[in-house]
Amino acid sequence: MGQAVTPEELERFGIALLEAAGTPTPFAREVARNLVFGNLRGVDSHGIRLLLYYLEHIRHGLIVPTAVGEPLHEFGAICAYDAAFGLGAATSAECCAIANRLASTHGVGVVTARRANHFGAAAFWARRMADAGHIGLAFCNASTIVAPWQSKEPRFGTNPICMAVPGPYEDSFLLDMATTTVAANRIFKAFQNNEPSIPAGWAADKDGRPTTDTKEAYNGLVAPLGGYKGTGLAVMVEILTSVLSGGAMGAEIGGIRYTEKPLSVSHFFLAIDVRRFLPADEFEARMARLVAELRGSAPAAGYDEVLVAGDPEIRIERERRAHGIPFSDADLAALHEAALSFGVEPLQLKNAR
Amino acid sequence: MGQAVTPEELERFGIALLEAAGTPTPFAREVARNLVFGNLRGVDSHGIRLLLYYLEHIRHGLIVPTAVGEPLHEFGAICAYDAAFGLGAATSAECCAIANRLASTHGVGVVTARRANHFGAAAFWARRMADAGHIGLAFCNASTIVAPWQSKEPRFGTNPICMAVPGPYEDSFLLDMATTTVAANRIFKAFQNNEPSIPAGWAADKDGRPTTDTKEAYNGLVAPLGGYKGTGLAVMVEILTSVLSGGAMGAEIGGIRYTEKPLSVSHFFLAIDVRRFLPADEFEARMARLVAELRGSAPAAGYDEVLVAGDPEIRIERERRAHGIPFSDADLAALHEAALSFGVEPLQLKNAR
Repeated sequence: MGQAVTPEELERFGIALLEAAGTPTPFAREVARNLVFGNLRGVDSHGIRLLLYYLEHIRHGLIVPTAVGEPLHEFGAICAYDAAFGLGAATSAECCAIANRLASTHGVGVVTARRANHFGAAAFWARRMADAGHIGLAFCNASTIVAPWQSKEPRFGTNPICMAVPGPYEDSFLLDMATTTVAANRIFKAFQNNEPSIPAGWAADKDGRPTTDTKEAYNGLVAPLGGYKGTGLAVMVEILTSVLSGGAMGAEIGGIRYTEKPLSVSHFFLAIDVRRFLPADEFEARMARLVAELRGSAPAAGYDEVLVAGDPEIRIERERRAHGIPFSDADLAALHEAALSFGVEPLQLKNAR
Repeated sequence: MGQAVTPEELERFGIALLEAAGTPTPFAREVARNLVFGNLRGVDSHGIRLLLYYLEHIRHGLIVPTAVGEPLHEFGAICAYDAAFGLGAATSAECCAIANRLASTHGVGVVTARRANHFGAAAFWARRMADAGHIGLAFCNASTIVAPWQSKEPRFGTNPICMAVPGPYEDSFLLDMATTTVAANRIFKAFQNNEPSIPAGWAADKDGRPTTDTKEAYNGLVAPLGGYKGTGLAVMVEILTSVLSGGAMGAEIGGIRYTEKPLSVSHFFLAIDVRRFLPADEFEARMARLVAELRGSAPAAGYDEVLVAGDPEIRIERERRAHGIPFSDADLAALHEAALSFGVEPLQLKNAR
């Protein structure tokens, strides 16, 4: 245990695998960077392990690695995009470029994408817009694993809400949150680690009863954030993604772990050019003041600091840039197997601390 | 006890009071309709009782009842508006009209307003955009009563998130939620009703420790929805309102119950013209399908139905349209006193059931 990989090596490896699977280099680079971003920030569920699913979907013809999609139509400051089952990061790079162009031209831009694939961490795309001087919001819908409040039947996904703001990536507000109390994989992990119980509010059993029993939760349902409000937010995201884009809805959506049909999620990108509201340096100064006021507020009993959305991930990123990205032996074995089957040079490891 | 008022009479009364306080009729009508909307939907915290605070702020020169503000500048699909301390509903009607015009012209429109007052229920404004065929989002910041996650010092407000969609008002998705677990006034009510405890997750004591003790909660802090995620959402709203508009931030914001300084909140309106993405009837059909799938999902153990955001309020509205809006004797006494002091005809009551 405790082996690590540098981000550069992980990106090299991801690109090589994708190219071997027939992906043009520019698309392979976007996908690999997006996944490394996830690993660097400690969001390993959205890191390189997704690539193994992508490769399976390519093998089954569900992801078209050469496709980048095209605008169905553009009008004023909006664009409806057809992602044509291209790799999620390849089509999202196009969509963010359009959103950024529209925002630069009109002050705001909205792009929806249908027939899309997993775009990795939403934060990567919100930052793509923030780096262009825009407030960036990125939403997507997801496989139906979450039941609405008061229901026991899954009807929508973890439907994340994500927002980034212009300013230095290393010290900024960067929100990227599922609209469930916790990400589903925290329940999977508790189950895998044989933890008998999980905190209240995380999950319900298969009949929709709130539970703290790990096994019941594993066989049950991920709970929406705070009950009916989380459901409301998830439906908001569902409307802005699948309903507005004309994309797949409900049971039409596939799953990344299944290969019967394409994933076919929908994305929503909103870019707002802050410079059309106030000077860029004034916006950044106001953001810095807000963040300082939050971090400078007195900690509650039991805590010694107050954090802003994005702070925990940046800390992990600093650590992992310095010491490498750690992987379990099981993950390394799976990645090694993929390297062998595609005939690419295996991951070079460095020893973790 | 149990006296009621028709919505028409309540609107007449609100307009009369506002006119007597120097408000031009069109502005008075917007404000009164906005408040009656709150009462009709059972959101009495955003109903006619707010008018008493508005009148106090007018008396102190903090609300300028004749002001409607003006655009600071407009560029492409965005507009930065200065609300100039006009009545919140008067300036918000202007801002929504601009957002609707921008969305009709460019597919999307964004309007920020600074130096603004309380705009009542956000849902009223989101519906104003939805009635024009647009997805409408309305956000505002608020007096600092909520501490960030891990903090015990209030740094932002209940910062609501609100969204409406085109389609029939009576049967649609209409989300209007504070980014706290519950509205602050539910804790006040539990305290007033001498209930010894409140559910977990609602509040923290003054040191920021989670508490279910009603008195500790009353003297403590409203909890952000689901902890750090609710804080993230509140900060998202804060950025889109005060930071982007150039408006008052943090301690600069006043309070509706205080008269030392203007409230000076900021508003954010986003309108998206769905007809630029897909035909209006297709959008409505897709919405109807989504809503039907949610309502049609199997109820969890202990429930016999599944609701969509807005359903509970519409039920109350049907009830109150049929039987009148009920008021407590204390509320009626306060409204009667206002009628006397402004020399307007008192509220005509009808007997509640």
